[in-house]
Amino acid sequence: MEMMHQSAEKNICLTIAYDGTDFFGFQSQRGSGLPTIQETLENALEKLTGAPVQICGSGRTDAGVHAWGQVVNFHTASTIPPDRYPMALLPYLPDSIAIREGKAVPPGFHARFGAKNKTYHYQFYCGRVMSPFYRRFACHVPYAIDVEAMNQAASYLTGSHDFRSFCAAATPKENFVREIYECVVEADHPEEPCLVTLKIQGNGFLWNMVRIIAGTLLEVGIGKRRPQDMPALLGLGDRRKTGKTLGPQGLFLYEVTYLE
Amino acid sequence: MEMMHQSAEKNICLTIAYDGTDFFGFQSQRGSGLPTIQETLENALEKLTGAPVQICGSGRTDAGVHAWGQVVNFHTASTIPPDRYPMALLPYLPDSIAIREGKAVPPGFHARFGAKNKTYHYQFYCGRVMSPFYRRFACHVPYAIDVEAMNQAASYLTGSHDFRSFCAAATPKENFVREIYECVVEADHPEEPCLVTLKIQGNGFLWNMVRIIAGTLLEVGIGKRRPQDMPALLGLGDRRKTGKTLGPQGLFLYEVTYLE
Repeated sequence: MEMMHQSAEKNICLTIAYDGTDFFGFQSQRGSGLPTIQETLENALEKLTGAPVQICGSGRTDAGVHAWGQVVNFHTASTIPPDRYPMALLPYLPDSIAIREGKAVPPGFHARFGAKNKTYHYQFYCGRVMSPFYRRFACHVPYAIDVEAMNQAASYLTGSHDFRSFCAAATPKENFVREIYECVVEADHPEEPCLVTLKIQGNGFLWNMVRIIAGTLLEVGIGKRRPQDMPALLGLGDRRKTGKTLGPQGLFLYEVTYLE
Repeated sequence: MEMMHQSAEKNICLTIAYDGTDFFGFQSQRGSGLPTIQETLENALEKLTGAPVQICGSGRTDAGVHAWGQVVNFHTASTIPPDRYPMALLPYLPDSIAIREGKAVPPGFHARFGAKNKTYHYQFYCGRVMSPFYRRFACHVPYAIDVEAMNQAASYLTGSHDFRSFCAAATPKENFVREIYECVVEADHPEEPCLVTLKIQGNGFLWNMVRIIAGTLLEVGIGKRRPQDMPALLGLGDRRKTGKTLGPQGLFLYEVTYLE
């Protein structure tokens, strides 16, 4: 019986976008009464399929953090065609969560363990006063910033490094080595930047790593640090020497890739 | 006495941006308990200056409509330097309203009667499912749209025309002639547009005019109308023949200009 059940089940993979502002992060906190992405999505899937569903995400995102390309998978006996999930879930989800894609994946596909690399974006809004249109989606920077200096500092982070200095609440036994494939800072306007975006892709990220990197690069941008200080910061392995952990509102889990 | 009072007063002009989603429009509805931009701003100014303030806006915006460049003026005996209003008002305003600029203007300056022309933007978000990041700021279009056809249709609206067909609840005696200086439709990506923006500048706009124009141009974009039908629609003077009034969330009062 158990085997028949298994074989009738499909493994479904969804790519989802969300405005994390009003959620207490991705991970379910059942019983707490706090809304999370996972619980909201699981409840919607249960209503749609008629059976309880447990989803597995590529990773957690903290409270207030957004996603454009979070990836989740779940096993279901439902006969709903996989590519219909984006539309079929619409009536059961708030407009702060959108399903961008649905597809069937092999039985062994696991959104967390199978993730090959992830891309995060961190957005800064530059201007004397914060734009009401970006208050949910960017960190406000009321100073002129030197994007070229930030970009130069960012370049030191590519490659394999021990990112202990860029990790919140590190435990001694952990492995802090991560490989960063790309780390760039881009501005929407070369001369008077308004929206500045840190784009970082790597094989994994430590807790708060992107937000601490963003905070450190911002300090380079406003002249409090020099780009060439980055290698020493990496070498020190001391969280107290790096920049502030910036707020969650500027952070987006942009893309997660898997081996085909 | 009255004259001395007058001469001690300054006429202050503010340029303000707001996310209109959570407001019941610009115009005060005192006593109703419904939050409006005007009342929120007047309350903030009263707290800041210590005296009741009555502001005059360049025009009303409807419930849910946004502004990047709404202009207001008010007379005050306060000695706060005009350029300090953006920062001074910060503690008294929600983050959905931002003061972009403050300056002293001549005693006769009137934000409404002095307005020379206005620019509105209307944003469309194209994609099968709506992006959570644009749900407050764009009209969702789940179809492919022909931006070039929309732009061609838009070009027929420039110049002086009787815009009766593009006005909600027209009253017979009103003058419906308005001059449109620019009317263009732009896409962020030429081949696969995601964000499409109608930009329209004119010497004045009738009630719901931009939202009805946006709805009519969208019908051109999805092939329900031809660009060359626009002159006939203008000539008919019949609101029932033009497109739907699109939702307020895509509309922005972008800029108001005055004679220097």
